[in-house]
Amino acid sequence: MKFLKYILIVVVVTWQGYAQSEDEKQIKAIYETALTQSKSYDWLNYLSNQIGGRLSGSIQAQQAVDYTKAQLDSMGLDKVWLQPVMVPKWVRGTPEFAYVETAPGITTNLPICALGGSVATPLQGIKANIIEVNGIKDLEVLGADKIKGKIVFFNKPMDPTLISTFESYSGCVGQRYAGAMEAVKYGAVGVIVRSMNLRLDDYPHTGSMGYGDLEVWERIPAAAISTKGAEFLSATLKLSPNANFYFKQSCKVYNDVESFNVIGEIKGSTYPDEIIVVGGHLDSWDLGDGSHDDGAGCVQSMDVLRLLKESGYTPKRTIRVVLFMNEENGLRGGKKYAEVAKNKKEKHVFALESDAGGFSPRGFSFDCSEGDFKKVKSWGPLFEPYLVHMLVKGYSGADIGPLKDDGIVLAGLRPDSQRYFDHHHSEYDTFEHVNKRELELGAAAMSSLVYLFDKYGVEKTK
Amino acid sequence: MKFLKYILIVVVVTWQGYAQSEDEKQIKAIYETALTQSKSYDWLNYLSNQIGGRLSGSIQAQQAVDYTKAQLDSMGLDKVWLQPVMVPKWVRGTPEFAYVETAPGITTNLPICALGGSVATPLQGIKANIIEVNGIKDLEVLGADKIKGKIVFFNKPMDPTLISTFESYSGCVGQRYAGAMEAVKYGAVGVIVRSMNLRLDDYPHTGSMGYGDLEVWERIPAAAISTKGAEFLSATLKLSPNANFYFKQSCKVYNDVESFNVIGEIKGSTYPDEIIVVGGHLDSWDLGDGSHDDGAGCVQSMDVLRLLKESGYTPKRTIRVVLFMNEENGLRGGKKYAEVAKNKKEKHVFALESDAGGFSPRGFSFDCSEGDFKKVKSWGPLFEPYLVHMLVKGYSGADIGPLKDDGIVLAGLRPDSQRYFDHHHSEYDTFEHVNKRELELGAAAMSSLVYLFDKYGVEKTK
Repeated sequence: MKFLKYILIVVVVTWQGYAQSEDEKQIKAIYETALTQSKSYDWLNYLSNQIGGRLSGSIQAQQAVDYTKAQLDSMGLDKVWLQPVMVPKWVRGTPEFAYVETAPGITTNLPICALGGSVATPLQGIKANIIEVNGIKDLEVLGADKIKGKIVFFNKPMDPTLISTFESYSGCVGQRYAGAMEAVKYGAVGVIVRSMNLRLDDYPHTGSMGYGDLEVWERIPAAAISTKGAEFLSATLKLSPNANFYFKQSCKVYNDVESFNVIGEIKGSTYPDEIIVVGGHLDSWDLGDGSHDDGAGCVQSMDVLRLLKESGYTPKRTIRVVLFMNEENGLRGGKKYAEVAKNKKEKHVFALESDAGGFSPRGFSFDCSEGDFKKVKSWGPLFEPYLVHMLVKGYSGADIGPLKDDGIVLAGLRPDSQRYFDHHHSEYDTFEHVNKRELELGAAAMSSLVYLFDKYGVEKTK
Repeated sequence: MKFLKYILIVVVVTWQGYAQSEDEKQIKAIYETALTQSKSYDWLNYLSNQIGGRLSGSIQAQQAVDYTKAQLDSMGLDKVWLQPVMVPKWVRGTPEFAYVETAPGITTNLPICALGGSVATPLQGIKANIIEVNGIKDLEVLGADKIKGKIVFFNKPMDPTLISTFESYSGCVGQRYAGAMEAVKYGAVGVIVRSMNLRLDDYPHTGSMGYGDLEVWERIPAAAISTKGAEFLSATLKLSPNANFYFKQSCKVYNDVESFNVIGEIKGSTYPDEIIVVGGHLDSWDLGDGSHDDGAGCVQSMDVLRLLKESGYTPKRTIRVVLFMNEENGLRGGKKYAEVAKNKKEKHVFALESDAGGFSPRGFSFDCSEGDFKKVKSWGPLFEPYLVHMLVKGYSGADIGPLKDDGIVLAGLRPDSQRYFDHHHSEYDTFEHVNKRELELGAAAMSSLVYLFDKYGVEKTK
């Protein structure tokens, strides 16, 4: 008995030792390929500088579909296709304009942009008293008496003391998304939101907002001002509580239009019916060129298939890259992909999204069973030489969220988050703020994780 | 016996539990203070934008001494002083100029800068055939026959496959430092080095070089060209092996001048004779404004003393900030500080340097005994919530190096290194490339480590 146990231990240890060193070798090959032959940066250069911002339903979004499809076509994959999906078409119109007026004719302009999905102001704009609140909960305290006929200024800042800037974002993005639909209940005529940005600067940051069940004629316009603008407006209102605020925007929602998820795959050599998805979203907001959000995630995901091939690995399972359309203002691409997968009874075992910027990768967060998470944690030492330390439970990604069921592991790349909201949804999200090596290291980390899940599979559904 | 052991275990576990939670609280207070009330960014703004590049012996270096001394004076420390040190004074002179000439009159200009410490070219410049080598070892292979009378072009690139860019730097900085003294042995008349930069761009990167034992009249001028320039020159030489290279520079070494280390301290409440040093170097190269190298390290080090105070901690040991002069081209400040400490028989127990850029902190590296390193590793869980994962053995910092002896723990802050050499020693090292939060997180991590060493001390000398 004891002797058998000894033999067993020796066999297991030896096998693990062998497997480990093969994994180390493969991951090293992936990283070396990524840092010397990656295409991520060139692809991103084209998406950002030749195409630019890719709002759903825009010509640029279509150009991005055409470009990435052509690139996938050139990669020698087993299959490349477009998956049709109807998307909302919201258009910003002419540049927005705003000022605060402390006395007749005494005005200061503020950098402003309409929130995505907002209605326009009347042609001549809106001018009204403005009242500052520190988030939605303040509306009830003030009540209709103090709000009726005014513009509401939501000025809750992101919490600087949280280490993850995404947590700070979660803590105050509610005022952007729901500010208008809540303020209108108290008779507000418009809504201004402090940009979701931890830095003080002059860029207004857009992002989606919604009107809930409001009828079209009940909707009020909503816009964001820059963080410096918000500080200035707040200080002005302390000195001149009766100041007027003026803003004008001409944005408009058109009928839905057809667009596409862009998909390519390498057929699995052993388990072709088990599908691994890696993706990002191809659409972006219109103010910058969408380099960090989420051009980076798209090109990294495309590169995962290349890097696995170029580093000499033949996947056992089917590896599919999906460039989702319309994450920003509808999530239609993510929903459509999951719907089609369900109808076709496709078996998805692992999905990985990169949608947190092209910065130095710090780790991954996982939405999965305890058994799968234990397996992931056992891979920790494989990632340590590459300074990928965070393997934690948590949020994965918006586009892959609709794939969630009992049998799938969902994961999100977690890059360093400190600079992300400096850029997010603003004119400052441009190509020159992406570092080539950081982008490539993200693609390499993603490829390594996909390699491990492809090789070892996931736990069986409980 | 067994009962006593049980009691002891309970006491130890309880005490550790208590101590842990007190440490957690103090470190949380440090981080919150850093992310809301840090002065690092404002100080760096002044150093970078009001003073600028601070080459040893320059007016700007003196302005930086005056400014940081005044800031320390305003902080309510127990003692602030200047420590005199003689430093080299090398001056760049008028802007350098270079071109490659493939046929008479057919020239292309290349971005160039003199290496720190180099001699000038003759007034009219140098024009000669140029021969490319892939590092110093190639010189012997080519021999004097192929080198005599020519300019040697050292074009070994930094290895992109290493994850730590500092390792890549170590692997090829030898050609910059020693290229001229080696090439002259084979009759070279000048030396051109590819900039130490992983990115392809148009910035030449300077840095120190030496002549060893060469007499003044034996010295040949040395300069760096940008990475894009190096790629262009290399391609040109493949087509036109007999191309001439021309460069002109007017740099000069003057007599040593007096400068200062800037020092401030909080006297220890319990062990005032045990000294903890935290520091960076105040001098920088002259091409940029020295924000990452090493304005960041200076302001973070100053902030450590503030953050400990503001977060309500009273140090048991003496905490001293030292802003070292002349790290870049002489290390005179670091040597002087250690010499004075030795003469005064001061007992230094811990020294921490920040000189790897103001990027997101990833960890620390330690030059210390196994016993101290074990203690450091036990603090790992305290740093994890702040995404400081790397506590490794390794290099600490140039300025604190001369303090090394058996009893001291030396440590270096390890920020994310991917972008560092994009900026290092070039015109691209400027304030706008430092992120406020990343800088503050570095100061908070440093303060937390200083807090732990202050509270728990170091192992006794073996």
